[in-house]
Amino acid sequence: MHKWILPEYVEDILPAEALRIEMMRRRIIDWLLVHGYELVGPPMLEYVESLLSGSGGDMDLRMFKVVDQLSGRMMGLRADMTPQTARIDAHLLNRKGITRLCYAGSVLHALPSGLTRTREPLQIGAELYGHKGLESDLEVQRLMLQTLAIAGVGDIHLDLGHVAVFRGLIKGAGIPVELETELFGVLQAKDICGLKELCTGLGKHVDAQVRRALLLLPELYGGDKILALARKSLPDYPDIRCALDGLEAVASQLKPVVNTLAFDLADLRGYYYHSGMVFAAYTGNCPNAIALGGRYDEIGKAFGRARPATGFSMDLRELAGLVQPDLYPKGVLAPYTQDNKALEEKIGQLRGEGQIVVVELPGHENGQGAFNCDRKLVLQDQNWIVTGI
Amino acid sequence: MHKWILPEYVEDILPAEALRIEMMRRRIIDWLLVHGYELVGPPMLEYVESLLSGSGGDMDLRMFKVVDQLSGRMMGLRADMTPQTARIDAHLLNRKGITRLCYAGSVLHALPSGLTRTREPLQIGAELYGHKGLESDLEVQRLMLQTLAIAGVGDIHLDLGHVAVFRGLIKGAGIPVELETELFGVLQAKDICGLKELCTGLGKHVDAQVRRALLLLPELYGGDKILALARKSLPDYPDIRCALDGLEAVASQLKPVVNTLAFDLADLRGYYYHSGMVFAAYTGNCPNAIALGGRYDEIGKAFGRARPATGFSMDLRELAGLVQPDLYPKGVLAPYTQDNKALEEKIGQLRGEGQIVVVELPGHENGQGAFNCDRKLVLQDQNWIVTGI
Repeated sequence: MHKWILPEYVEDILPAEALRIEMMRRRIIDWLLVHGYELVGPPMLEYVESLLSGSGGDMDLRMFKVVDQLSGRMMGLRADMTPQTARIDAHLLNRKGITRLCYAGSVLHALPSGLTRTREPLQIGAELYGHKGLESDLEVQRLMLQTLAIAGVGDIHLDLGHVAVFRGLIKGAGIPVELETELFGVLQAKDICGLKELCTGLGKHVDAQVRRALLLLPELYGGDKILALARKSLPDYPDIRCALDGLEAVASQLKPVVNTLAFDLADLRGYYYHSGMVFAAYTGNCPNAIALGGRYDEIGKAFGRARPATGFSMDLRELAGLVQPDLYPKGVLAPYTQDNKALEEKIGQLRGEGQIVVVELPGHENGQGAFNCDRKLVLQDQNWIVTGI
Repeated sequence: MHKWILPEYVEDILPAEALRIEMMRRRIIDWLLVHGYELVGPPMLEYVESLLSGSGGDMDLRMFKVVDQLSGRMMGLRADMTPQTARIDAHLLNRKGITRLCYAGSVLHALPSGLTRTREPLQIGAELYGHKGLESDLEVQRLMLQTLAIAGVGDIHLDLGHVAVFRGLIKGAGIPVELETELFGVLQAKDICGLKELCTGLGKHVDAQVRRALLLLPELYGGDKILALARKSLPDYPDIRCALDGLEAVASQLKPVVNTLAFDLADLRGYYYHSGMVFAAYTGNCPNAIALGGRYDEIGKAFGRARPATGFSMDLRELAGLVQPDLYPKGVLAPYTQDNKALEEKIGQLRGEGQIVVVELPGHENGQGAFNCDRKLVLQDQNWIVTGI
């Protein structure tokens, strides 16, 4: 094994891609800033308990862990920046009104979340704290869609879901926690056989309508008629009714700005930390969601300060892979001199205009150090001018 | 213990600081780009052997380690991005001529390097590969000084050293490796008693001039007269003579652009990976070097491709703490509406100009969501205009 081989699902970002990601990162952060989202930088690692707060079981397995030599306690490397941002809102900023935050940075996954996925996504996202209503769901979803447009990603399909549908069924039927976890598992895996088995096992303790509803959930995926079907088939619990109304209202606002939109009432990704409407954006042939988010009012509870919250995040590296690469900007080659004021001024001027100027070092003249340069500085009639190479 | 308390020497970056760091990061990266330094993004973690290659013993202790669940091998979290960049130059880009690279990202230290230091510095730096001469030392040092100026840090003191002085003495006197390590340790710690003891122990196997030279090293710190003293007192080995000539040449070029400049011939920081001239910049009352670097031609050897190399790096978070904070930009408050085209256009226009516009969400009117806003949008004579709050 060569010493310089990288672990699986871990990659270097080389110049062309790095520049593309950098510029995309800047455009997105600028966009979030002018919408009033303040940038924060949570640490790469903190105590495991803190990172796991309110985020449920799946996070525990995704996280790399190290022992803190200073305290002997276990620290985790962040696998998601959302819980960290919620902690900052709850305890560091601790404001009464609405707080809007955004962030960008590496997160680490002990195992890749899929065959095409890296173990080091570059997570960028925005979160809105302190507002319960649909207006904040809408603001955040609209912002996510605009952010994708800013990044140059078009042809968006939006999936909308609501964890209150499944939760409402569980609560309404009085299903115990262990069974809830099992049901969640089979629904998440779209394991229809398993779901049938569990629903049969629910037996007579549980209302027949709830059983039918649970069996129906995986089929509740599609356009407007799915909402109508859900209203007809699901039990008329207030939580479920309210969820369906919310989905309809948000969908009517967002339909004009996306390519296609569908409801997915069995989408339980992030179920342990989400508490309301959830959403995921897809594009073209990309099988994975390229951006996702949702409402997670419960998360602050673990930090002792429950706050309404909704937000979205995306992987910059994945986004950068979706857009047509710009050509790497070409540079201008300059001869090496010492104390040539006129040349130094000309170089300074070009660089001030944002042009790349590469100085040839002695022993490497004639283009040896000219990687990616297509012009050069030459002295003509006592003026330094740029010509082709 | 509250769940949300962070580990020692680990901090969140809150909005004002995060914005300052972000803008400084952009200015520095842009500056490095126009000098022909291409941006790369090495991963947060890779196999320990790869991270330790050529970097010597001290790095091993500074690194957090985790087991890779996919390979069972040990991975380290990067504590320094320089060896990673060298690996990229050697094996991924694999160019024949000169390669200039830059990078910016978090590095993690298992223990803080000092009482005032974080365990998560934001390292930013530049490296030049493939050129042996003084011209590249000079380019890199000049670039470091200009980068500090770009960042807004002035009043710079520059320390110059050269590992060939100590190495030359060791080699010239034929001192065995174990003793070299001990001598390195006492010199690094500026432990004069220990140094005397070791030098006495060297006994007659070692030339008296070398013993005297080793004892003198910690005193070889200061201005031009130190070079003269070194030339007089150190053995006249070619390596040492060449090192002193190099220091003199570089110093004469850089003196005009720094506040003060000194030679430090016992500066052995990074001795295991540096091979030539080393340098460190200081400012004002800050006890730690705010930027440092040097030549490390040997590092590529571990990757099977030795290349001349020199570079510098600095901690963005530390730099951001040194400059006068800009005031966080104030925003404009906008009322919440649906389908008000004129208002939406006005908001879009303001945001397009880079202004922060925060939309008040229902239930949070009258400044409740107005954190950091000092103006608002109001309708006057059928036009949306900005007025004071």
